[in-house]
Amino acid sequence: MRDMSGRILFDMAREARIGLPEAVYCEGKDFESLRDLMGRFVRGSGKRILFTRLRPETFERMPEGVRAGYDYDPLSRTAVGESFPDRGEKAGVVAVVSAGTSDAFVVHEAARTLAYLGFRTRLFEDCGVAGLWRVEQNLPEIRKADVVIVCAGLDAALASVLGGLVSCPVLAVPTSVGYGVASGGGTALRSMLSSCAPGIAVFNIDNGYGAACAAARILSLKAGG
Amino acid sequence: MRDMSGRILFDMAREARIGLPEAVYCEGKDFESLRDLMGRFVRGSGKRILFTRLRPETFERMPEGVRAGYDYDPLSRTAVGESFPDRGEKAGVVAVVSAGTSDAFVVHEAARTLAYLGFRTRLFEDCGVAGLWRVEQNLPEIRKADVVIVCAGLDAALASVLGGLVSCPVLAVPTSVGYGVASGGGTALRSMLSSCAPGIAVFNIDNGYGAACAAARILSLKAGG
Amino acid sequence: MRDMSGRILFDMAREARIGLPEAVYCEGKDFESLRDLMGRFVRGSGKRILFTRLRPETFERMPEGVRAGYDYDPLSRTAVGESFPDRGEKAGVVAVVSAGTSDAFVVHEAARTLAYLGFRTRLFEDCGVAGLWRVEQNLPEIRKADVVIVCAGLDAALASVLGGLVSCPVLAVPTSVGYGVASGGGTALRSMLSSCAPGIAVFNIDNGYGAACAAARILSLKAGG
Amino acid sequence: MRDMSGRILFDMAREARIGLPEAVYCEGKDFESLRDLMGRFVRGSGKRILFTRLRPETFERMPEGVRAGYDYDPLSRTAVGESFPDRGEKAGVVAVVSAGTSDAFVVHEAARTLAYLGFRTRLFEDCGVAGLWRVEQNLPEIRKADVVIVCAGLDAALASVLGGLVSCPVLAVPTSVGYGVASGGGTALRSMLSSCAPGIAVFNIDNGYGAACAAARILSLKAGG
Amino acid sequence: MRDMSGRILFDMAREARIGLPEAVYCEGKDFESLRDLMGRFVRGSGKRILFTRLRPETFERMPEGVRAGYDYDPLSRTAVGESFPDRGEKAGVVAVVSAGTSDAFVVHEAARTLAYLGFRTRLFEDCGVAGLWRVEQNLPEIRKADVVIVCAGLDAALASVLGGLVSCPVLAVPTSVGYGVASGGGTALRSMLSSCAPGIAVFNIDNGYGAACAAARILSLKAGG
Amino acid sequence: MRDMSGRILFDMAREARIGLPEAVYCEGKDFESLRDLMGRFVRGSGKRILFTRLRPETFERMPEGVRAGYDYDPLSRTAVGESFPDRGEKAGVVAVVSAGTSDAFVVHEAARTLAYLGFRTRLFEDCGVAGLWRVEQNLPEIRKADVVIVCAGLDAALASVLGGLVSCPVLAVPTSVGYGVASGGGTALRSMLSSCAPGIAVFNIDNGYGAACAAARILSLKAGG
Amino acid sequence: MRDMSGRILFDMAREARIGLPEAVYCEGKDFESLRDLMGRFVRGSGKRILFTRLRPETFERMPEGVRAGYDYDPLSRTAVGESFPDRGEKAGVVAVVSAGTSDAFVVHEAARTLAYLGFRTRLFEDCGVAGLWRVEQNLPEIRKADVVIVCAGLDAALASVLGGLVSCPVLAVPTSVGYGVASGGGTALRSMLSSCAPGIAVFNIDNGYGAACAAARILSLKAGG
Amino acid sequence: MRDMSGRILFDMAREARIGLPEAVYCEGKDFESLRDLMGRFVRGSGKRILFTRLRPETFERMPEGVRAGYDYDPLSRTAVGESFPDRGEKAGVVAVVSAGTSDAFVVHEAARTLAYLGFRTRLFEDCGVAGLWRVEQNLPEIRKADVVIVCAGLDAALASVLGGLVSCPVLAVPTSVGYGVASGGGTALRSMLSSCAPGIAVFNIDNGYGAACAAARILSLKAGG
Repeated sequence: MRDMSGRILFDMAREARIGLPEAVYCEGKDFESLRDLMGRFVRGSGKRILFTRLRPETFERMPEGVRAGYDYDPLSRTAVGESFPDRGEKAGVVAVVSAGTSDAFVVHEAARTLAYLGFRTRLFEDCGVAGLWRVEQNLPEIRKADVVIVCAGLDAALASVLGGLVSCPVLAVPTSVGYGVASGGGTALRSMLSSCAPGIAVFNIDNGYGAACAAARILSLKAGG
Repeated sequence: MRDMSGRILFDMAREARIGLPEAVYCEGKDFESLRDLMGRFVRGSGKRILFTRLRPETFERMPEGVRAGYDYDPLSRTAVGESFPDRGEKAGVVAVVSAGTSDAFVVHEAARTLAYLGFRTRLFEDCGVAGLWRVEQNLPEIRKADVVIVCAGLDAALASVLGGLVSCPVLAVPTSVGYGVASGGGTALRSMLSSCAPGIAVFNIDNGYGAACAAARILSLKAGG
Repeated sequence: MRDMSGRILFDMAREARIGLPEAVYCEGKDFESLRDLMGRFVRGSGKRILFTRLRPETFERMPEGVRAGYDYDPLSRTAVGESFPDRGEKAGVVAVVSAGTSDAFVVHEAARTLAYLGFRTRLFEDCGVAGLWRVEQNLPEIRKADVVIVCAGLDAALASVLGGLVSCPVLAVPTSVGYGVASGGGTALRSMLSSCAPGIAVFNIDNGYGAACAAARILSLKAGG
Repeated sequence: MRDMSGRILFDMAREARIGLPEAVYCEGKDFESLRDLMGRFVRGSGKRILFTRLRPETFERMPEGVRAGYDYDPLSRTAVGESFPDRGEKAGVVAVVSAGTSDAFVVHEAARTLAYLGFRTRLFEDCGVAGLWRVEQNLPEIRKADVVIVCAGLDAALASVLGGLVSCPVLAVPTSVGYGVASGGGTALRSMLSSCAPGIAVFNIDNGYGAACAAARILSLKAGG
Repeated sequence: MRDMSGRILFDMAREARIGLPEAVYCEGKDFESLRDLMGRFVRGSGKRILFTRLRPETFERMPEGVRAGYDYDPLSRTAVGESFPDRGEKAGVVAVVSAGTSDAFVVHEAARTLAYLGFRTRLFEDCGVAGLWRVEQNLPEIRKADVVIVCAGLDAALASVLGGLVSCPVLAVPTSVGYGVASGGGTALRSMLSSCAPGIAVFNIDNGYGAACAAARILSLKAGG
Repeated sequence: MRDMSGRILFDMAREARIGLPEAVYCEGKDFESLRDLMGRFVRGSGKRILFTRLRPETFERMPEGVRAGYDYDPLSRTAVGESFPDRGEKAGVVAVVSAGTSDAFVVHEAARTLAYLGFRTRLFEDCGVAGLWRVEQNLPEIRKADVVIVCAGLDAALASVLGGLVSCPVLAVPTSVGYGVASGGGTALRSMLSSCAPGIAVFNIDNGYGAACAAARILSLKAGG
Repeated sequence: MRDMSGRILFDMAREARIGLPEAVYCEGKDFESLRDLMGRFVRGSGKRILFTRLRPETFERMPEGVRAGYDYDPLSRTAVGESFPDRGEKAGVVAVVSAGTSDAFVVHEAARTLAYLGFRTRLFEDCGVAGLWRVEQNLPEIRKADVVIVCAGLDAALASVLGGLVSCPVLAVPTSVGYGVASGGGTALRSMLSSCAPGIAVFNIDNGYGAACAAARILSLKAGG
Repeated sequence: MRDMSGRILFDMAREARIGLPEAVYCEGKDFESLRDLMGRFVRGSGKRILFTRLRPETFERMPEGVRAGYDYDPLSRTAVGESFPDRGEKAGVVAVVSAGTSDAFVVHEAARTLAYLGFRTRLFEDCGVAGLWRVEQNLPEIRKADVVIVCAGLDAALASVLGGLVSCPVLAVPTSVGYGVASGGGTALRSMLSSCAPGIAVFNIDNGYGAACAAARILSLKAGG
């Protein structure tokens, strides 16, 4: 009754237009579509697409040829065929700071996205403010970064504390870590948007990819300065 | 069509039962009822009732005789006729810490309630974590208290920071300070309930009175120890 | 593309600072990390960490050596290697009162946490106010406690009733028991925060651990009095 | 550009159909429409309509002739021209029980509606469960009623307590009394819907009128039995 | 570390006090507890308890002796050992009306509860207002009932339509039927609470049991009239 | 410090592009801007702009010259300078049906917008389903319309009932009429979106203007057919 | 204890009354009922019913005879036995436009429903506004349609962009595509209802079926014009 | 009963620490406190503080000496005594783009904050996507900016459209413009957080000040590059 060719209309011009290539959010897409898609962007294809939220069990089901064509990371759930060349330290360094180990999947989604775009990162995990010395101990190193990405769930107090301690751009990603009123990350999101520290930029819950893209937009400015 | 005698049934036995006398929450009550009520509990009546959320303009409309019988404080919006005798330092001291000056009406509602119950307080205002040195500067003094009440709106990050720095009971009161997603205090409330610092007790938004009562329950334990 | 050493930065100084050692919330952490963690804190290690929200099926998958090193309780879902010595009756007793049998997992999380910290508890389950005689029958015994923890879902009316009957600190934990508008525990939480009984302290939904920590903060005050 | 005759299409057949005449909810209607409407249903007109949520200042603005034709009550904000004849004790008695004096406007809306429909009521105000003796003291009298209407704001615990103590129909009306999470009455509503006492019927927030109509439906059954 | 006798404190006096025996909500209880409980209330035990929300797969796991002692109905998910004797038509008849077949599990929970309590019911399913003739066709029969229970999900418009057509008590149960904004039943609940038909009593989402208990409270009044 | 010329960039090409000219939503705009704007689009200017949500008190403050250049209607709160010529019955007729008199401001906003666009309407007010005969009585006339706009607050049951009775397009506008859970119109909105009648199109709360524009889009189709 | 004949009362007169036959929403119905139902409406039965939200795994479990009698499409999850004859291009064409490939299940539910009702569609997928050229490229073709259905999740910005570019009726269906604040489709729904483009009609989340029915109502008008 | 000196503890070290001086959010502060504060930071005082959300009527009440010491702008509601020197074009230019004239107060709060910090801005108002040509017409100029701030209410579709067209950092500020589901700005906020364009940074509702601070953090990076 209908034509089901299912052709996906990629925005391949996006990279030229805004400096960021298209990405595929895999959650909720059926296996067949993903398999076909991944077959087209393997390493060596010369076309850059980042696959995010790709579950390990889905990647494992991919044909050998597809799997071999990708650098897949199960913690961040990202797969990269072709990536950007490393831009080096001078292009800017991003510090990714987290409150607890449960935030790791977001931390690493951000870090992997930046690596794919050619930027360098340094990770500072487990810096939750209930043990304030952990932030303070890392502060001198964090301050060397050009951009700070903060990932935190629960009350996300880390964003405000850091925002009051560093002068560079602070990008805050609420994580869906917690239970009760914190479950789903809504409290962390609202807390970050309400931060008393001035100039904290906020992203959707668990959106490490988005914060990394924003960091790339900012660092490109630095490059062009 | 109906009998409108409007007799209010006070729970005067409450003090004997739980150590806390009844209080009257004035918001939303009509002037006539409040005037009659206040007339019955003036200084010298020997009966203790605390009036909370009593607006200055309402108190000003009271007859001279009523006004003279009360210690009224416009910032905390509380009126006290008869109060408990000062229990002294040994009964315990409560530190009331706030994030910003807009939290003052809650800070003072808590402090006035404690004074009315005979307990001593020390205030530490403007300790928001965007300027972390303000907490740290006051920390040695705050640590001397037996109980800490934290009042904060917006992201309420101060509760988590303090909760990780002091060992005594921490009672957290979210305030309705802020706008956008913070308006009404719901974000501060959720943030405090989600605190990563262990053992933070939380109260309803702007409920300085409730936190003071909880502090009194705790200090009575100390006295009885 | 990145270093995945995944070192977890523990706040081992927390116990010295606030009297409460760090705890690990296991929900949402991957098996490998938990297994490594649990391997480091077995009985005899001399280091105290409480594992909460540890599902029975996860504990069962642990290596024999790990399982043997822990006292695991499936109802409360907690595991303890090294615990604090029993502080005795004089350090204070906590009554844990619940509305119904479905609240048991929270009741026992609170009780286990207190036992781990060295404090004694007495349990009073099934005291829901639809059968008011059950509270009244237990009241003389409940009144002997130094702190009362109330666990209730649905409308959580038990918190208000108890709060009006006992003079000691009342710590209220809403539980995620119920369906329809009660599901998830949000109604119980809001009900407890709105309690007409003065001075009820509230915790996040199902947070028996948090209430136990608050009780420990309070009882330490008694000890130090 | 359009015909503004504004004719209101009354459902005058409602009384014959369901035993309850139409009522006019005045909130949000403009003064001119209300004045015209009230002019048509004054005492002696032979037509019965109840006006609810009619503010005192609105009634005061009505022409003398209209005001004289109504029994207006400022507390319940209701106006009645023609009412039903008193049906006497045998038709059934409704107990209206409230938690606090702030619930009075709902208590009296229910009582006035019942009086208008010809039923008798008995009021039991200030029975909040923080002072449980107040319910217990009134229980023998409350138990004599055929139907109980409970009006409560905040945590609305009174509904559950009463629901577990009386065997007759219990109609629960949440009131918009309270602040913070209780403001607007949403917590009381959810609490009543979640009541652990079986068979509690619930109405919209502040809807004393609706509960009275339900009581009338029930009592008509008794009459017809 | 603790005593796990897990004794459940039943409110066996409830029947004498309010005419309704205790019920066990099975959802969320562990199998072992349910098995022990059900073993105590089999047919012939002389003790009446209704088990609600008991899944078929759970009942199937029960020992043969337990299964034989119960009348179990998989649609309503209820199990009854000992039930009340049939009170006959004179005790009153309850019409249970639903909007669609998906509401059946609630319809039958209500009907089974009433049968267990000794009351008779008549079912009128699939009367959704999108085909108004279905209500109208059944109206003469529905009007013969003493109480009407309406079960509907989605927009729950049936409650308002019926409420304007019958004069007896109308008990409305929102069902968790629907998707998008209707999912979970919140829209049906709010719609019923907002009904423009006067005197509609509302219950928690899917709470057929509660509506049946309320009907029993009402019919007892008829009996006693 | 900045240029405040405040030039407003109108989308005057909108009419050519989509057949609907731009409109000005006046709520929240300051008086000076509105006065300048209205001065530019008076009758005779040849430019068509509809002003919506223009309060009577604001219009009254306008200079005489502006007021004289507009057809202002206080009920719908709309002002029209230049309008479209009447397209006659053949262009299609829109029935605007409402549940109660409080919905009038939305009914008339829709009707005025249609008149401005040149389309004819017929109004059927007070057709709430609690008195079902009112819909049924008007049904033959309503069925003659080409498009039906339904305006209702509270439970908005009228939309479902009408949607099951007429075959033409049904456009449903929830109104902010009601209190408690109905206040603000959110319940009516959710109810209309959940309607069991197929093919009901829904608009934002109180958006009579939007429904009228949709009707115009539909009728243009008829004209072009 | 009760009669379980489970007869479903179909509204077979609906087609005559409003031009749209009844449909069966399969989600949440048990397999046995669905199997019986589907057995009655196979191709050749002469009776038209559309089955929506029928999962592939459920259809696969159907007996061979039932499966053979239906045209089942796993992407749209719809099954059709008897359908309406093709009405041809002259009856009108509907453009179904989507933002991304994840919206496909809604796009195809709409398209299949229209095909079943005899109307023709053209699909324009992957037109998300982050790559605006994709809309612009397709615009000339989209403008040829008589009605446009827009399916979009996340921020649903496509609805506003298209609404400002085409003059025909625009029917907007929010999809449950996205995560964090977008999850469940609530953001897309609110965004579409708030669209700044005039006259956008909105449907429940994922309700492609409803939008198709509304398109059919509109096209019937064209036919009758 | 307490010391009311009300000393405000300013974080004057903030500028040195993070490059942004402290600001005073005036909403909700009492007149006396504001008057004292403003007296301390007049032009010539050498101390920089920005006053935001300062209502015109409040500023008008200030003593002549205070008013003379400030540059007050009623549209943005900001007052500046001492400001930063103009950093010139080379320090970077910020484009502030808005959807409609009602967003002006946020647009100008952002622009004034940037001017105060020494940065230059260019404004592009009324670029709502319902008339897409307005964005497109301004695009060449917007692309010259180093940072883009987008202010939009309602569905906030402009953020996604712009985010797909420019490569520089995009800072999105939802505004509280709209009614019904859009009122308060929550829909715009959720829409911006869900944007399909990659790397959009979001701020609290109406928080033009915050976006300006983030732009300053970013531009400082450019300066330091």
